[in-house]
Amino acid sequence: MSDIVKQLDYIFKPRSIAVIGASENVTKWGYRVLERPIRTGYKGNIYAVNTQAKTILGKPSYASVKDIPGEIDMAVITTPFKQVPVVMRDCVEKGVKGVVLISAGFAETGLEGKKIEDHVVKIAREGGIRFVGPNGNGIWSAAANLNITFDLAPKPGNIAFISQSGTFGEYLVEMARNRGHGMRAFVAVGNQADLSAADYIEYFSQDDETRVILLYMEGVKDGRRFIDVCRQAVKKKPILLYKSGSTEAGTRAALSHTSSIAGSDIIFDHACRQAGVIRTQESFQTIEMAVALLHQPLPSGRRVGIVGTGGQGVVSADACQKLGLEVPEFDNHTAMQIMQTLPPHAPLPRNPVDFAGGYRTAMDEARTVEALMKLNYIDAVITNVPVNPLVWGLRIEKGDSNPRLQEAIKVAEEGIGYLCRLPKLYKKPLVCVRWQLKSSDDPYEAILIEGGVPIYDTPEQCARAIYGLVKYAEFRHR
Amino acid sequence: MSDIVKQLDYIFKPRSIAVIGASENVTKWGYRVLERPIRTGYKGNIYAVNTQAKTILGKPSYASVKDIPGEIDMAVITTPFKQVPVVMRDCVEKGVKGVVLISAGFAETGLEGKKIEDHVVKIAREGGIRFVGPNGNGIWSAAANLNITFDLAPKPGNIAFISQSGTFGEYLVEMARNRGHGMRAFVAVGNQADLSAADYIEYFSQDDETRVILLYMEGVKDGRRFIDVCRQAVKKKPILLYKSGSTEAGTRAALSHTSSIAGSDIIFDHACRQAGVIRTQESFQTIEMAVALLHQPLPSGRRVGIVGTGGQGVVSADACQKLGLEVPEFDNHTAMQIMQTLPPHAPLPRNPVDFAGGYRTAMDEARTVEALMKLNYIDAVITNVPVNPLVWGLRIEKGDSNPRLQEAIKVAEEGIGYLCRLPKLYKKPLVCVRWQLKSSDDPYEAILIEGGVPIYDTPEQCARAIYGLVKYAEFRHR
Repeated sequence: MSDIVKQLDYIFKPRSIAVIGASENVTKWGYRVLERPIRTGYKGNIYAVNTQAKTILGKPSYASVKDIPGEIDMAVITTPFKQVPVVMRDCVEKGVKGVVLISAGFAETGLEGKKIEDHVVKIAREGGIRFVGPNGNGIWSAAANLNITFDLAPKPGNIAFISQSGTFGEYLVEMARNRGHGMRAFVAVGNQADLSAADYIEYFSQDDETRVILLYMEGVKDGRRFIDVCRQAVKKKPILLYKSGSTEAGTRAALSHTSSIAGSDIIFDHACRQAGVIRTQESFQTIEMAVALLHQPLPSGRRVGIVGTGGQGVVSADACQKLGLEVPEFDNHTAMQIMQTLPPHAPLPRNPVDFAGGYRTAMDEARTVEALMKLNYIDAVITNVPVNPLVWGLRIEKGDSNPRLQEAIKVAEEGIGYLCRLPKLYKKPLVCVRWQLKSSDDPYEAILIEGGVPIYDTPEQCARAIYGLVKYAEFRHR
Repeated sequence: MSDIVKQLDYIFKPRSIAVIGASENVTKWGYRVLERPIRTGYKGNIYAVNTQAKTILGKPSYASVKDIPGEIDMAVITTPFKQVPVVMRDCVEKGVKGVVLISAGFAETGLEGKKIEDHVVKIAREGGIRFVGPNGNGIWSAAANLNITFDLAPKPGNIAFISQSGTFGEYLVEMARNRGHGMRAFVAVGNQADLSAADYIEYFSQDDETRVILLYMEGVKDGRRFIDVCRQAVKKKPILLYKSGSTEAGTRAALSHTSSIAGSDIIFDHACRQAGVIRTQESFQTIEMAVALLHQPLPSGRRVGIVGTGGQGVVSADACQKLGLEVPEFDNHTAMQIMQTLPPHAPLPRNPVDFAGGYRTAMDEARTVEALMKLNYIDAVITNVPVNPLVWGLRIEKGDSNPRLQEAIKVAEEGIGYLCRLPKLYKKPLVCVRWQLKSSDDPYEAILIEGGVPIYDTPEQCARAIYGLVKYAEFRHR
C-alpha cells in the first residue's frame, strides 16, 4: 500500500472521528459537521470536542481531543482560525492521523492568514498528520458512509469529485444526484495548504471503486507534480477537469476565494492535453461527460450514428461535427436495410436516421440502433429516449384496467432492456437524448439509467458525451 | 391592418375551425388535433370532417367541409397527402381563410411529393387561402386559446416561437413551461410551402403581446426577404435564432427532414449579424436568453457586476469575459462601501463580490446588489438565488410552530421583493443563478420569476443571458 493510500484512508475511511468545535447552534459549522454524519449513518465512533458541554447531539463531549478515550483516526476542526495551531498540536499529541480543517481565515484573507496557515502546516507535517483544507466545506465518502458536507447525502457511486469550491462543488453533486448519478467521494480542497488536488488524484486513482475522477479547480499548486500525477492516473481512469480562473476577472476572483494563483492558462491547457486530462468548456459539462464514461464502452473511432426524430437528429449531427466527430453517410444498400427497421412513413435514412415521429415499440427502436452498431464504420450511437405510444395509446383508450396494457408495458420494458445490452454486445457506446419531458410516472428512464445508458436533455449534451468518450479512447490508444 | 395580419389572424385567432380527417382512433393525427382544442378549452366553434361518422368526440361531423353550416375561419387538414389537393379545393369553395396542413408526404419525400405540394400551393393561392405546413406539428395560440399541438398546453406568455421542427420545438416549449415560462404562440412551419418564417416574423412583430420572437430553423426560404423582415422586426422586439444544418451532416439531415436547403452558413450568419438577429450556439440557449429579454431592462453597456459565493462568482466572471463582457474591478473606496453590505467573514470585494457562504437575509443580498447597481461603471448584475438561512434555521430549531418563523418568512419575502424591484429602479438588468437545488416547498423562486428576474442553473447560462441583453441593446442603439 502506498503512503498516500495509507494516509488518506484515515480521512476517507476513518474508524473514528472527533469533531473539534462541535456545537448545538444550528447556524454553526460545528453543528453541521456533527449532525450530518450522525443523521446519515456513519458507523464509526463519533466524539464531540467542546469546552462547554458534557454531551452534544447525544454524543459525549470532551474539553480537548486529548481527553477522548480510544484512538481517533480523523478529526474535523471548525474552531476560529486563531485557535487552530493549538488544536492541531493537540491532535498531534493525541495521535490523530488525518484532519479535515473547515475553519477559514487563512491564506485567502492575506499575508497574516498565510503565516498562520504555514504554521499549522508545519505542526501537522512534524506530527505526521495530513489534512484537508483549510477553508473548505469538508468531505463525503461512500467507503465509510461518512458525510460531513451534504444536507442530503449523495447516492453512492463511482465518481470521485475533487472540488476547489465547497458550495459550487456541492451544488454540482446535488445536480448529479437529482439525475440519478452517484458518487464515490467528494472533497472540497479549500486552500490546499497540505493535501493538494494531486494527492487526491493519486489516492483515488488507486481506489478500485472510483471509475472517473472529476475536478473543479481554480488554481493548481505545483503544476508539474499535478500534471505528472494526472499522466499516471489517466492510464487507469479518465480525469475530467473544469478549471476556472482562466480570464483576468476569474483569476482575481480565484485569488480571494481560495488564494489560488491561476497562472498561464495557455501553458496549463497544453500540459493537460499532453497528460490526457479532458478539460471542459463549461462547469457542468464534467458531470455530463462523467456519466457516459462510467458505464459505456470506449469507441474505436469518432464516427457517430444518429437516430432521432426530425430536428433532434439535425441538431445532433451539427453538434457532433462542430466537435470534430464524424457523421458518415450510409450507402444505398445500408440505407435500405436500416429502413426496414423504421416506421412506414420514415424517409430513406442517410445518417442521421429520422424515425419520423415515433416507433411503435422500444424494441423497434432498439432494432434500428442495432443495425447502426453492426456497421463497421460506426463507432458510437446517439438515439432518442424511447417513448411508448403503444402503452400510452392503450392507457388513453380504456385506462389502466385495459387488459392489453400489462402486455404492452412488458413489451416496452423488454425493448428498453434490449437497447441497454447493445453497447456491451457491440463494444460501442450509446447515449440517449430526451425528446419529451420526463413524466413522473414514466418507469422507462429508470431502466435506461440502471442499464448504464446516460440520458441527456439536449442533443448538444449527447454530442459532448460522445466527444468525452472519444477523447479518452484516443488517449488510451496512443 | 396589414395584409399579413389580416391573413394570419384567421389562423392564430380563428372564430371557428374545421378538422378535416378527424378521427376517434387515438393513434391518428385526426384524433389529436380535434381532442386537444376541445380538451384545452378553445372557445370558437369546432367541426369535424370525416366521411364515415355523424359525430366525433361529441362534435358534429360532416362528409365535406362544404357541408358545414356557417363560416369557417380555419381548417386543420390531416388527410393522406394524395387527398390534399381535393380537400384544399373544397376549402376554397367553402370560403375558408386559413389552413394548418399537418399531412406529410410532400417535398420532404422527393420530386413527386414536391409536385403535389406545388399543386396544393397553386390551389390555395388562387383561392385566397394562406396555409401553415405541410409536414408540421400544428400551432398553438394564446390569443385564441387554440391548441392543436401540445398534449399539455403551454402557459400563456409573451414569446412567439417559430419552429421548423415540430417535435423538437414542442420539447423546447415543454422545457420552458417546466421552468415557469409562457408563450404567446407556437408554430411548426413544416415545409413552408406557402407561409414561411418571414411571414410569421412579420406577423408577430406586429402583435403587441409578443415581446420576443424565437426561431428554430433548419433552412431559410428566400433568404433576402427573411433578412429584410428581420431587420424591420428587431426594431420592435428581439429575434433569437438557433439555426441547425450548419454542418455537412446537418445539411443532409435538414434536407430529408423539412426539404430545407441550408445554403452557405457563413453568408447567412453574416446577414443575421447585420440585421440584428441574435444567433445562439446551441439549441436551448434561445429559450435561456428569451427569458431575460422578456422582463429585464436593456443595459447601457457590457460591464457586469457579479455577486456570488466562492466558485460560482469565479465561474460567472470567467464566463462573462469569454463572451466579451467586462467585469470591472472596484476601486478601494467602492470596495469598502460594498463590504458594509456583506456578512462579517466575507473578503474585500473586487468584483466578483464573494458573500462567502451566506447572507443572513435576502434583504442583505438585495443591499449588495443595489450597491453594485448604483455604480456608474456597472451595467448589469448577476447574483445568486437568495436562500434564507434565517427561515431554514428557525424551522430546524423548533419546527413550523416556531413563533419567529412567520416573521422570518415575511422578512425573506420582503427582501426578494426588493431585489425584484431593483432592475426597474436603476434601469439595469438582473439575473440569478441557483447554488442549491430548488426544493419543492421553497416559495422564493416563484417570487423571483413572478417579479421577472430569470433564474438559471449555471453561471454560464447567466452570462449568456446578459450577453443576449447586451447584443440586443447594442443593436437598438446603433
